[in-house]
Amino acid sequence: MKHLHKIVLAAVAALGLAAVAALPAAAAVEAETAFVFNSFSFLVAGFLVMFMAAGFAMLEAGLVRSKNTATICLKNIALYSVAGIMYYLIGYSLMYVDVGGWIGSFSVLYNPSEAELALINAEEATEEMVAAVVDNGYSVMSDWFFQMVFVATTASIVSGTLAERIKLWPFMIFIVVLTAIIYPIQGAWTWGGGWLSERGFSDFAGSTIVHSVGGWAALTGAIILGARKGKYGPDGRVNPIPGSNLPLATLGTFILWLGWFGFNGGSQLALGSALDAAAMSIVFVNTNLAAAAGVVVAMAATQVIYKKVDLTMALNGALAGLVSITAGPDLQNHFLALIVGGIGALIVVLAVPLLDKLKIDDVVGAIPVHLFAGIWGTLAVGIFGGGSLVTQIVGIVAVGIFVAAASAIVWLALKFTVGIRVSDEEEDLGLDRGELGLEAYPEFRGSQSLV
Amino acid sequence: MKHLHKIVLAAVAALGLAAVAALPAAAAVEAETAFVFNSFSFLVAGFLVMFMAAGFAMLEAGLVRSKNTATICLKNIALYSVAGIMYYLIGYSLMYVDVGGWIGSFSVLYNPSEAELALINAEEATEEMVAAVVDNGYSVMSDWFFQMVFVATTASIVSGTLAERIKLWPFMIFIVVLTAIIYPIQGAWTWGGGWLSERGFSDFAGSTIVHSVGGWAALTGAIILGARKGKYGPDGRVNPIPGSNLPLATLGTFILWLGWFGFNGGSQLALGSALDAAAMSIVFVNTNLAAAAGVVVAMAATQVIYKKVDLTMALNGALAGLVSITAGPDLQNHFLALIVGGIGALIVVLAVPLLDKLKIDDVVGAIPVHLFAGIWGTLAVGIFGGGSLVTQIVGIVAVGIFVAAASAIVWLALKFTVGIRVSDEEEDLGLDRGELGLEAYPEFRGSQSLV
Amino acid sequence: MKHLHKIVLAAVAALGLAAVAALPAAAAVEAETAFVFNSFSFLVAGFLVMFMAAGFAMLEAGLVRSKNTATICLKNIALYSVAGIMYYLIGYSLMYVDVGGWIGSFSVLYNPSEAELALINAEEATEEMVAAVVDNGYSVMSDWFFQMVFVATTASIVSGTLAERIKLWPFMIFIVVLTAIIYPIQGAWTWGGGWLSERGFSDFAGSTIVHSVGGWAALTGAIILGARKGKYGPDGRVNPIPGSNLPLATLGTFILWLGWFGFNGGSQLALGSALDAAAMSIVFVNTNLAAAAGVVVAMAATQVIYKKVDLTMALNGALAGLVSITAGPDLQNHFLALIVGGIGALIVVLAVPLLDKLKIDDVVGAIPVHLFAGIWGTLAVGIFGGGSLVTQIVGIVAVGIFVAAASAIVWLALKFTVGIRVSDEEEDLGLDRGELGLEAYPEFRGSQSLV
Repeated sequence: MKHLHKIVLAAVAALGLAAVAALPAAAAVEAETAFVFNSFSFLVAGFLVMFMAAGFAMLEAGLVRSKNTATICLKNIALYSVAGIMYYLIGYSLMYVDVGGWIGSFSVLYNPSEAELALINAEEATEEMVAAVVDNGYSVMSDWFFQMVFVATTASIVSGTLAERIKLWPFMIFIVVLTAIIYPIQGAWTWGGGWLSERGFSDFAGSTIVHSVGGWAALTGAIILGARKGKYGPDGRVNPIPGSNLPLATLGTFILWLGWFGFNGGSQLALGSALDAAAMSIVFVNTNLAAAAGVVVAMAATQVIYKKVDLTMALNGALAGLVSITAGPDLQNHFLALIVGGIGALIVVLAVPLLDKLKIDDVVGAIPVHLFAGIWGTLAVGIFGGGSLVTQIVGIVAVGIFVAAASAIVWLALKFTVGIRVSDEEEDLGLDRGELGLEAYPEFRGSQSLV
Repeated sequence: MKHLHKIVLAAVAALGLAAVAALPAAAAVEAETAFVFNSFSFLVAGFLVMFMAAGFAMLEAGLVRSKNTATICLKNIALYSVAGIMYYLIGYSLMYVDVGGWIGSFSVLYNPSEAELALINAEEATEEMVAAVVDNGYSVMSDWFFQMVFVATTASIVSGTLAERIKLWPFMIFIVVLTAIIYPIQGAWTWGGGWLSERGFSDFAGSTIVHSVGGWAALTGAIILGARKGKYGPDGRVNPIPGSNLPLATLGTFILWLGWFGFNGGSQLALGSALDAAAMSIVFVNTNLAAAAGVVVAMAATQVIYKKVDLTMALNGALAGLVSITAGPDLQNHFLALIVGGIGALIVVLAVPLLDKLKIDDVVGAIPVHLFAGIWGTLAVGIFGGGSLVTQIVGIVAVGIFVAAASAIVWLALKFTVGIRVSDEEEDLGLDRGELGLEAYPEFRGSQSLV
Repeated sequence: MKHLHKIVLAAVAALGLAAVAALPAAAAVEAETAFVFNSFSFLVAGFLVMFMAAGFAMLEAGLVRSKNTATICLKNIALYSVAGIMYYLIGYSLMYVDVGGWIGSFSVLYNPSEAELALINAEEATEEMVAAVVDNGYSVMSDWFFQMVFVATTASIVSGTLAERIKLWPFMIFIVVLTAIIYPIQGAWTWGGGWLSERGFSDFAGSTIVHSVGGWAALTGAIILGARKGKYGPDGRVNPIPGSNLPLATLGTFILWLGWFGFNGGSQLALGSALDAAAMSIVFVNTNLAAAAGVVVAMAATQVIYKKVDLTMALNGALAGLVSITAGPDLQNHFLALIVGGIGALIVVLAVPLLDKLKIDDVVGAIPVHLFAGIWGTLAVGIFGGGSLVTQIVGIVAVGIFVAAASAIVWLALKFTVGIRVSDEEEDLGLDRGELGLEAYPEFRGSQSLV
């Protein structure tokens, strides 16, 4: 109930006012002060999540071959841009404005509230003007900014899975539909206060609503698009295609970890009271411990299974821990965060070869990390967090069916019209030269040669 | 009026006090609370802008050839360092302390105020001591820190244009003069409350005062220094010299985008009221949308013109959008931010080949991005933002003439004394081996070979 | 007294309450508002310091050879993870809970306070519940988060020195002991309120407690582990082994610089008053100027000594400046920060060849930067900061003896049981292929060839 929370905030503000009348003035945070805290918290958390776009870009740039590196960089900055524009044009309103059970408003261009503009433009601000703004609990566009970076995260998940063979512009069209329509509609069900919210589905910061949505979109895309040339031999052999720049992938993971403090911490949605500050701190700690457990479990598991520790699996372990804790980072015993994150990482370590058996080619491992660990994290709320396990399953399945079906329709429509796959020659040559006419590392020999 | 704003803040604080006497206590942010908000906002925005130094370093490191990469890294960390030191030694006072119409004070070493030191050193703080500090609206050094990272940004712009052929130490001498004298003097005219401010020139976060200043310094430098060997053939042919590491350039762009939230958001200069929080949120959203539009327009324009999308142009499109919105990120209809940013990107796409026709060799495209889009953004305030177009032109021209003339004098003085250009042999060999005696990527073959 | 400070905060809160009764309401920050400021300040500073883990990873990845790059990336994300887990399991309690003179409590699993959980779980929060939480001055887990990233920093220092020849798992065991036991015990002496704190030892943000501790652990490790093959010739010749990716090292340094604003600024430990905001701002400025002076001095010194400016030395100069100012970033005349940082950098420039003479092989220069500059910075508090020079020396020596002895015991125990050094063949082949079975840059020729 990311947005309905507004009502709670208003109630808190009202209580605050009442309290002030009755109590010593020092006891409570003033309503306007709380407004500033809440808004600033959205902005700070929001810029952290925005930076996750760079994290995804570096992670994916490090895990593709160098002949496809510039293209994946372009896709990442382009999808972040498109997500923001589409969410402004129609996405936010579909998700949060006048949501019935299933969908919000079809109004376009989400802009500052009249109350805020009246205050900003007043020659002399009156008490009433300030109160009209403060009543909302936070500034309208700080919330928009924070919500926007979430839809961008969903979009980022898709690019990694489909790298090295998808055409640029059809991919961008999919991102337009995903961020303008698919993500907002399912988001309205829970965070917009729709039917899943009413059933009590609980997803604090989006293990399902953000991560598994990106995962479903990626999974349907991967199936419809097919695997990279040479990834699966005719005899069922799986050919590993190593990433070209592992320090970049490591950097990307660290940036994502950093951004996740905004992702989960900011999803407390308020900072205007001691309760909120304490709760946000708890979220930070759980977020960090789940990721840490993910790294350690992935290292141990790969050591045991493969007799060698795998760096890329350790990175994905961190991400799996983060995705897993995202649905319920408010656990009151931090030890549980270690459990939740560790299991998430174990799922990823086991799922990666499974996907390969199914010949689903996921270049960066985004499906295990965002979809499987996202499902696990959402279930974990029903196990450790006090939510209903049945309701959690209902939410996971409903969102999954809708997003997988909607995505499949879009992918198939694109496939049978403009086409979604580059030519064989382009795939061999690399998308950088084929689609962009340039190279990511023009001076480093071997860029073009491998596989 | 970045600094005069202090007076406004004091007035607000006074009003706050008055209001508290008359109204329910909960209505307004307390003066000391507002002081903390304002100061913390400067620190948070300041560290974001500080990180832009890393963004410029990575952008430039990615766009030069590998034989010049270490040198551009060195220049970037060196110029950030020198900018901070010079601004402490004399720059800040020239810009902000006792500004007449044209210039501030020649005092040296800007340190904490006596009121702040008295409070910090008091055995027991009195009400008067706190009031003396709070009266200023924000802590003195938080403002200095925020202003300092702006002068560093100006300096960062120059290094990219002149990369791959300018000598290290003469370049550093130019940076000393730019950050100690040239930037502060023109800054005093507007943000210091000088003559341009009195005429109503409006430049919210520095499309002109920061970006075009860096652009003019770069442009005069590029003309006086000359193009890189081999860039322009005798027959007028332009030889493209591709950057050696495009994921780094992408990372740099993302870091700059992140930092820009501090750049523009922090330029609200206050966070101590609902009005400020709402206004800062609006600034964040406009900043993001302008950059997003820049990316999309640059992609579309290069697709149309060159039949291929150009990654480096998409990156510069983002930056052009950001520079364009910087003069007026307080637009109250966010759709206008899309227009302003999109036009900025279009200007850059069209201007890059134009500069090449003029044989002005700008390695990273900083002149189109920071100068041309900076001019456009400043004009846009006169078109969309309610400022006077004539006054905006006066500001653009006045700053341009002063900075171009002052820069030209310094560049020419350096050219005819110590020299500013490396030898032909050094340019061939690469500045890394020539000037620093090392290599940026010693193990990757081909580092030395290309072009 | 990082933690005892809590008492001061409570006193301030109490004073605030008293003041409110007697004075106009607008004069002071309310206790709950201060609680939010203090907690949020820990979270923001904490995420900045967390990002330093990425800074160390990139710095070290850039300074090792490419055949050891993936391994150093893995070690960095693993040590950050392990540090957090161990600090949660036992470290924090050893350092901060019920500290006698020498050591804290052996309780396990540090979790949110009962007061906080009571407030969060209440159907309806009472005034008493809020007061019980607010009384602490900041949220319990925000402090834990902030302290945790410090122990992680200590651990990060060790990995760089010992890179390119230490086995993965024994290294991780050392990190377990360092972060669970060694760091917390010596930390209890000062920041936990133990005997060094009572003697008046002053170390604002940890030149000794964090940086020299990491430095001692690294130094003993380097001696016991021995130098890399080929680093020192039989004739006493020192063979330089250049880093493989200098832009990454530059990025790492910029990230560390950014993170240091959280490191030093957050160590003000409070933001709930004008005094704290002003003091934190002063810390930011000193931190920046010390680093800037470090860069400039390192550039000048290498130019004078070697006739060439050395990029890696400039980067280490920045870090030396940062480490040096860390013990006393509250200097009230910022000019002193230039002196402190500049001398720190000079020490590093002179110490690097000295260590080579002693055949102590420190791959990234972490011993000069963190140990020597850390000692210098701690002494500087006795010189410029008003502390007692004798007490500072007592603290430096006591911490040094304890950490060096404890580290040596652990390193030797590991050496004579599981072994700490990879085989000769593995060292030649590179740890990436030997230990992990992969390559950091599989497509770039020459990865395996050099040295």
